[in-house]
Amino acid sequence: MLRAVVYGYGNIGHFALDALKESPDFEIAGVVSGSLEPGALGNIPVARSIDALLPVDVAILCSPSRAVPDLAADLLAKGICTVDSYDIHSSVYEVRQRLDAVAKANGTAAVMSAGWDPGTDSMVRAILEAMAPKGLTYTNFGPGMSMGHTVAVKAIAGVKNALSMTIPVGTGLHRRMVYIELEPGADYETAAAAIKADPYFIHDETHVIAVESVDALKDMGHGVDLTRKGVSGSTQNQNMRFQMSINNPALTGQILVAAARAVKK
Amino acid sequence: MLRAVVYGYGNIGHFALDALKESPDFEIAGVVSGSLEPGALGNIPVARSIDALLPVDVAILCSPSRAVPDLAADLLAKGICTVDSYDIHSSVYEVRQRLDAVAKANGTAAVMSAGWDPGTDSMVRAILEAMAPKGLTYTNFGPGMSMGHTVAVKAIAGVKNALSMTIPVGTGLHRRMVYIELEPGADYETAAAAIKADPYFIHDETHVIAVESVDALKDMGHGVDLTRKGVSGSTQNQNMRFQMSINNPALTGQILVAAARAVKK
Repeated sequence: MLRAVVYGYGNIGHFALDALKESPDFEIAGVVSGSLEPGALGNIPVARSIDALLPVDVAILCSPSRAVPDLAADLLAKGICTVDSYDIHSSVYEVRQRLDAVAKANGTAAVMSAGWDPGTDSMVRAILEAMAPKGLTYTNFGPGMSMGHTVAVKAIAGVKNALSMTIPVGTGLHRRMVYIELEPGADYETAAAAIKADPYFIHDETHVIAVESVDALKDMGHGVDLTRKGVSGSTQNQNMRFQMSINNPALTGQILVAAARAVKK
Repeated sequence: MLRAVVYGYGNIGHFALDALKESPDFEIAGVVSGSLEPGALGNIPVARSIDALLPVDVAILCSPSRAVPDLAADLLAKGICTVDSYDIHSSVYEVRQRLDAVAKANGTAAVMSAGWDPGTDSMVRAILEAMAPKGLTYTNFGPGMSMGHTVAVKAIAGVKNALSMTIPVGTGLHRRMVYIELEPGADYETAAAAIKADPYFIHDETHVIAVESVDALKDMGHGVDLTRKGVSGSTQNQNMRFQMSINNPALTGQILVAAARAVKK
């Protein structure tokens, strides 16, 4: 039995806890949350600090990606293994170097970026490249809600609530369908222009649609259509394809639990 | 640079050699074959025994599966790493136990069953089970030629040449389309009945078609459509799918070369 903590209780934390409940080889030490009331999760302990839940074998980090590197380093130094779904692709290598040193110095281990992209999609891409070393892989996401793009839209002046959907248009390109609720008196044209000029959107085909209720449009389904056409040896036209249609945070939560099992091996 | 030998020169051996030629991190020590003439492969040495090609870091075994266990054990005992695409699913575990002991005793290593099924399909199935631990996976093969079934048909009295195609009909079930050339004077009805009663065919929908030339029908394309619908945590209806349309021996040859690289790490 592994004693696990869920660290952070947003969408991912909720579903990581759900996956732990379905895993008989885990004991749930509790949830660390800055906002949940004690008792909010019934008989599952809720604490402000992991120190109140010790001993802990593994912490499943469900905080925003930006907070992950410092948090993981702290926990690893305390002798607690960590798993995370860190998704800032450009700094994965650098964070890995940092956590690797802390983990080795403290006899612990971390599994990083254990979501579905980066994560299981990365594993599939690596297998496809081994099968056909020359060629092109395209990762087509969606249709589904992009967390990063949605947060970027919410930061635009005049936007009260937002949803940015990622629509695959093939060959790794995506259309952005942005649904917004405007603040009273805000101008649609001004907000739409600001969204389209944002670095998150400026390179993609982007449509902005004003709606009465963004909440009425939200679902947590997502998907991927990952294709590779390549060459095995000197044999051309080897075609491979991986598709998913899934509940996004539920899948991430489950993969985090699988990684929590693996990190103690 | 790794010095590799291709052991056996049928379809798989041909394409494994082809993949080695495209891999700049390998030096080709030669091909071991009981039937190829020396000089048949230009400047690539051909030998009756691997002893004539030493030193060898890794041997890529392209012999029939039945011959693999003894051959691999001999080579591992000589200090040569091996990779194979052993595909007799029911005895993989037992052969693994045997080779593991020999390899450890001799400071060598073996990668077994490194084809696409077993092989990369097995890796994908394991990833899908980690993503959705409850649920059903169906592996649908084809359309493509089944080597095992074709060999079984050729052994039937009155059959001069044969091709057994595997046609996926969904949920892991397959139709067998069997094309035969009859010996002069052989009776179609007798041969067809014997084929349908063979253990390879008795559980599947099987159609037997007499043709003038089996060779005119053969291509080495194959494929798979592997699906899983399962549960992440307590979230139902997580749908995943992996498809390929590929040249079968070319893919197997390439995977064997990738495994040959891995076995020395």
